Amino acid sequence: MKRDLKFFFDPRAIAVVGATAHADRGGNNLLRNLTLGYKGAIYPVNPKYDKIMDIKTYPTISAIDGIVDLALIFVPAEQTPGVLRECVAKGVKGVILENSGFAEVGPEGKALQDECITIAKNGKLRLWGPNCMGLIDAKNQYVFSFMTPSLWHGLLKSGGVSLIVQSGLLSAGFLFTIMSHNTLGLAKVCSIGNKCDITEIDILEFLLDDPDTKVIALYLESLSNGRRFFELAKSSNKPFVLLKGGKSAAGAMAAVSHTASLAGNYQILHGAIKQAGVLEANDFSEMMDIARVLEKGFAQKNNASRVGRVAILTYSGASGIVTTDYLEKFGLDLAALSPATIKRLERLSPDWMPIKNPVDYWPAMEKNGPIAALKEGLSALYADPNVDGVIINLFAGMGAWSFDLLELMGVIKDRKKPILTWLIGLKDTLEPARIRMEKAGWPVFNEIHRLVKIMSTILQQR
Amino acid sequence: MKRDLKFFFDPRAIAVVGATAHADRGGNNLLRNLTLGYKGAIYPVNPKYDKIMDIKTYPTISAIDGIVDLALIFVPAEQTPGVLRECVAKGVKGVILENSGFAEVGPEGKALQDECITIAKNGKLRLWGPNCMGLIDAKNQYVFSFMTPSLWHGLLKSGGVSLIVQSGLLSAGFLFTIMSHNTLGLAKVCSIGNKCDITEIDILEFLLDDPDTKVIALYLESLSNGRRFFELAKSSNKPFVLLKGGKSAAGAMAAVSHTASLAGNYQILHGAIKQAGVLEANDFSEMMDIARVLEKGFAQKNNASRVGRVAILTYSGASGIVTTDYLEKFGLDLAALSPATIKRLERLSPDWMPIKNPVDYWPAMEKNGPIAALKEGLSALYADPNVDGVIINLFAGMGAWSFDLLELMGVIKDRKKPILTWLIGLKDTLEPARIRMEKAGWPVFNEIHRLVKIMSTILQQR
Repeated sequence: MKRDLKFFFDPRAIAVVGATAHADRGGNNLLRNLTLGYKGAIYPVNPKYDKIMDIKTYPTISAIDGIVDLALIFVPAEQTPGVLRECVAKGVKGVILENSGFAEVGPEGKALQDECITIAKNGKLRLWGPNCMGLIDAKNQYVFSFMTPSLWHGLLKSGGVSLIVQSGLLSAGFLFTIMSHNTLGLAKVCSIGNKCDITEIDILEFLLDDPDTKVIALYLESLSNGRRFFELAKSSNKPFVLLKGGKSAAGAMAAVSHTASLAGNYQILHGAIKQAGVLEANDFSEMMDIARVLEKGFAQKNNASRVGRVAILTYSGASGIVTTDYLEKFGLDLAALSPATIKRLERLSPDWMPIKNPVDYWPAMEKNGPIAALKEGLSALYADPNVDGVIINLFAGMGAWSFDLLELMGVIKDRKKPILTWLIGLKDTLEPARIRMEKAGWPVFNEIHRLVKIMSTILQQR
Repeated sequence: MKRDLKFFFDPRAIAVVGATAHADRGGNNLLRNLTLGYKGAIYPVNPKYDKIMDIKTYPTISAIDGIVDLALIFVPAEQTPGVLRECVAKGVKGVILENSGFAEVGPEGKALQDECITIAKNGKLRLWGPNCMGLIDAKNQYVFSFMTPSLWHGLLKSGGVSLIVQSGLLSAGFLFTIMSHNTLGLAKVCSIGNKCDITEIDILEFLLDDPDTKVIALYLESLSNGRRFFELAKSSNKPFVLLKGGKSAAGAMAAVSHTASLAGNYQILHGAIKQAGVLEANDFSEMMDIARVLEKGFAQKNNASRVGRVAILTYSGASGIVTTDYLEKFGLDLAALSPATIKRLERLSPDWMPIKNPVDYWPAMEKNGPIAALKEGLSALYADPNVDGVIINLFAGMGAWSFDLLELMGVIKDRKKPILTWLIGLKDTLEPARIRMEKAGWPVFNEIHRLVKIMSTILQQR
């Protein structure tokens, strides 16, 4: 039962109820953010003003002279039912309730929220939220959120990852953080709060058909419809990454006062998540890291032939050993290199150095120069039929040893196997090198454990 | 049986055997690095030159006209026994063998290494290495290493963490990385390679008496004397952080060809590590992160009264929930706040907002401004007798919401409980804020799981 949510994602005209001329207030930010990229008609609603930011302002929704597809609401909670009745009368199709003070604050708020649901249901109006930060579309530069406008400028980079989150942090502070670090390209960000009507299921159905969305990452404190969620996950060819908040008893308690979510029994859920091929993350960074790797096109979903045999190419014995220790911890195997690969690697290596996986290729780098040795090493390991994924350890810029990381990666011509890089280096050279690699589609990590865990996750061995 | 190793750590004169005029070679780097900070006499040894870098060069060690405490050796492995015999004849006290081609390459190399040991033993000469990168002393700016000189310039920042490592990575590439990120203050770095004579035990005995060393972090592929190691750990009032390489069977195999180490049975070792109060790390970043927190003086070693009740102060419900989930995972408890604390926190909070741990203090921040609310929140939680450690979630710079993080931390007047901060923010404001916090002694993390794991480690709950 697919529902058309186009009036949320691409509305013809938007009313902002609770718009204000006071800078730094949510009702002003909403309006200011709309002017960033939204091209349709914008109707501020507030009986106190004739104009806000030079935009004609209406005393009520019914006073607006054009059609209104979507209303963004930022008024005190108790005024919401009245506004919704007006929306119904006006023929508004969708409302995003960005205000709070509903089910998350207790029984009184819950009653208010229920009243809103009834009004909407009877009036064929769809409700998004409440207690949320709305919707962001990076490609169209739509920001339907009340967060500080100055922070969005120049940050929204279009890409293939869409987010569905029950969290302001993931639709504001943490989102700004990852965007400003050039780490992730975003399609849509959907902050769904208490999800009193529109749930993750509605949004998933929409995003599965959205051509811009390649990967869907979710932070959820509860599943609105577990059965349907897992059906969608199983049948989808877009990977799902899930961070479940409230896994512990104490965390579940906290979720009640955050988004009024009943977190449910995580142990049962965990089994279903695995079965449905959903990739699970344990914190925000990990969620984004998994999504970032998947966006780069390494892992096909539900590819049963994938197994976990990993080759390691390094210039450091210790990093090879510590990486190997983590392979075991995360259920991966050290690949047994084929005789042909060993022969190829030996050609560049001094006689006294036996070739083993992990491949500590420092002696070959000394003998042939780093770039020549690493090119041969990487392409040999990647071509080995006994290898399912490759981990490389690189140093960004090292005096006479500097070389172009992208020249090295150029030996790889397809993306049939994941190649993940642990990159270290001096701050001034590390950061541009990281961004250059990421932009070229090569995922880079600054910690070994995180890299190996994600290799394990995408090889679906956990 | 304490041994005086002053001739390694503060030699009166140093010979460099295998010195060369060719830039970018190890034998040139050794010499160049000595000129960075070493003030004693420097004697290059190489029969091909009269002078290298304007320093008088000798054909042999015996030709040197002054006393020599320490010789740094960088000649082909097979020439080493001859050089050592000369050192004995000259009365040299210690030798650092920075060359490789010994036990790590197989039986022949092992025989060569044994020959060196015999010569040294009979001649009362102490051997450091082989297959190592020597010694660094950040306070004195001593660099007795063959790694690229340009990389050391301006990077060595003096502090309280000493390292003992069987790894070039940890005495070069990774060390540069952490130094350039201003993350760690170093006392001594001791790269001990195959440890054919000088072992971690000798160095530990020296560092336990070293006034500059506050914390000792070790990367070891084998323990040379497990019993003595654990005796030292138990009796030491300086904390030990250990990263054991070769925990897995495959990792242990790799350690043989790295530093000729027999990794031993990790399960048995793991129990002893816990019993001795050694803090265990699983990768390089974690090792440095634990050391960095301990250096700031939060944890007293063997403080039996420490327990794991943690308070969380955040502006984000989701971050509180995810942090809480991690508390359980890492064996910590969410503190039950005392009634007095709750009363104090309620004063700044709107009536509808019940105070619970995790403390989502956003409503109080909105009502009172962020800095006033967070100051009160932090000092109330820190003062609570039911709280053993505090986790804060902060955003560095947020438009109108910006405030000085150090003004906030100023409410804390002692360091009886660890306070760890998860700091996010836009790249341009995050990085200076991180460094400012670290310099003022407040450990900052960019990932929740890492922060909670280290809180758990230093509260000794694992």
